[in-house]
Formats: sequence, C-alpha cells, structure tokens
Amino acid sequence: MAMPVCLVGATVKGRANFCAVAWFTVLDDEPPAIAVVLGKDRATMEGIQENGTFSVNIPTGSNVSAVDYCGINSGHEVDKSEVFSVSFGTLGTAPLADECPVSAECRLSKVIEFPGTDMVIGEVVQLHVDRGLLEDGKVDVESLRPLLYSFPGGPYLSIGPSVAEAFKVGKTFAPKM
Amino acid sequence: MAMPVCLVGATVKGRANFCAVAWFTVLDDEPPAIAVVLGKDRATMEGIQENGTFSVNIPTGSNVSAVDYCGINSGHEVDKSEVFSVSFGTLGTAPLADECPVSAECRLSKVIEFPGTDMVIGEVVQLHVDRGLLEDGKVDVESLRPLLYSFPGGPYLSIGPSVAEAFKVGKTFAPKM
Repeated sequence: MAMPVCLVGATVKGRANFCAVAWFTVLDDEPPAIAVVLGKDRATMEGIQENGTFSVNIPTGSNVSAVDYCGINSGHEVDKSEVFSVSFGTLGTAPLADECPVSAECRLSKVIEFPGTDMVIGEVVQLHVDRGLLEDGKVDVESLRPLLYSFPGGPYLSIGPSVAEAFKVGKTFAPKM
Repeated sequence: MAMPVCLVGATVKGRANFCAVAWFTVLDDEPPAIAVVLGKDRATMEGIQENGTFSVNIPTGSNVSAVDYCGINSGHEVDKSEVFSVSFGTLGTAPLADECPVSAECRLSKVIEFPGTDMVIGEVVQLHVDRGLLEDGKVDVESLRPLLYSFPGGPYLSIGPSVAEAFKVGKTFAPKM
C-alpha cells in the first residue's frame, strides 16, 4: 500500500530528533488533529512525553535520503539533530525540519497504547507552509509532491497525475441495478 | 496532503454499505491492525457496531467514480449495495467490493471517540488480493496503483514513479556537521 511518509520531530534530551513514520492520519479538521503511530520505545516518544509537543513534517522526493536515514537510525543511538536545518515556532519545543515544505506544530493531546505500538494524538497548533505552495488558502499537493512509502518494505514513490475531481466525478455515477 | 483512499464496508440493516475514507492508517503489522477515522453518525458505523465487522477495500483509478459516489452519498439516504459486486469472506458480514483489487476483512476491536470523529480499530482477519498483484508474497504497489485523495477537497491522484529504495538510500546519507 502507498502511504505518505512524515517525519515526527521532538526535542529529546535537549536535541532535535526526527523519526520517519508512514503510519499516521488526520483525525479531524476542525479543530485540526493528527494521530501518529509509533513503535514501542522510540526516542521520539520520550521527547513527546517530556515536552508535550511534537511536529509532523512532510518531506518531498528531495528529502528522500534524509528521510530514509531517519527511518534506519534510532534516536537512541544516533544524534539526528543535524539531519535538517531546525527551527522552532509557537510551541518552542517542536522542532521544524526547514527542508520540509510543510510542517505542523502539535500539542500532545494523549497517547493511546496498543499491544505493539503507541498512538500519539496531537492538536495542530500551527501549520508552516512554504511560500508558493498555497493556492486559494490550501496547500497545492501537486506542487508539494509529498513522498509516499510503499508498505511494506518500500520503495519510496512520488505522487502521480490527477485522476479526477473529488465530489464531482461521482455525481454522474449510476450504480448497476 | 495526498492520502490513500479506502472504502470502508459494513453490512447496514442487511445491506452492504461502503463509505469513502481517506483518514485511516495501519496500526500494527503483527498482528495486523488498522485504524479508520469516521465522521460522527455514519451509517457505516451502525453496521460496524451491529456486526462487529467491517472491510477496508483499496480502490484504484478505475474505481474513481464509484469511490466519489460513496463519498458524496450517505448510506442513511442512498442504498449503496449495488455500487460494487459484493462478496463475503471469513467473517460473513464484512462486504468485499470485488472491483477493488485488495480488501481486508476486519474484526472490530474497539471504537475510540473523539470530539468530532470516531476511530474504529480493527484486527485484519483475512486479506484478499487479486491474483497478479502479489510479488514475493507482498502486494506490488506499482501494479496495484492505489487511488490517492488530495486533502482537503481533491483532486484524486494516482501514484507516481519510484523515487528510491527504502532502508537503503539513507545508508549513505551524511548529516551536515
């Protein structure tokens, strides 16, 4: 299955850390909330719990080596604070990967534990979007060109061309009866 | 953001119903579990609660009109039982959309309520994959060509070409120091 990849950022022991995650979803749009699924014992989780904040950064094909590096290497063993140029926004402790054209600062709402994973629920406090990607106030996905991950095992994929307009192409669909 | 679309199927009042959902994620792979986010008061949820089962069907570009139809029309108002050819597998009450090349039968684990949405957690009991899509025992995503939804508002997108191998391209990445 093709799933978008994000980089979940957190400040761990005073340093920015980024974890590559393909298991995440929007949870609501008003107010905006995101759910991110992390393996157990991630360094990122330590930082999220400590600060009550995290970021969700959307990489593109240009970032693929850095994304894969963040996926291969654990923050318990490798200092990932230099992988990206890091800045901080409203929350102060949610590291933003400046090379990613879209980043969301999130305040931790809660952690839901499952047998093999933990789900981190966050309220999106501030969305950072590169100039030039906004069209009519929303992110133009075709310009953004987010990176997808083919689950399981890869490869990374790009998005392809538009197929049809949403909330429109189905208006003329007639179920067989 | 580009997100894959699925059709969540349930038997509602004795009839197959399908709801188009772009807010979902894998929750675990061993044992396999999926989390699906539904708006409040969905007809699909009635069926999921009643039977304790649902399906997650992965459409492709060929199904885009039917997917959009399922997204536009509520199961409270429209009978969607004829949108797809429907079959049933192991669970007996999780309708499989035969036109979708991949379908997962899920047993409901729990529903987690959020202010504006409900998250349905399901254990994947049986995966149905069209012949010809399996390569080395896993679904070949480039042959599957899943449909993506550009959030918010569309359009629907296809997947594009491969960008890089996963767990490999990052091995030679050197963070700037």
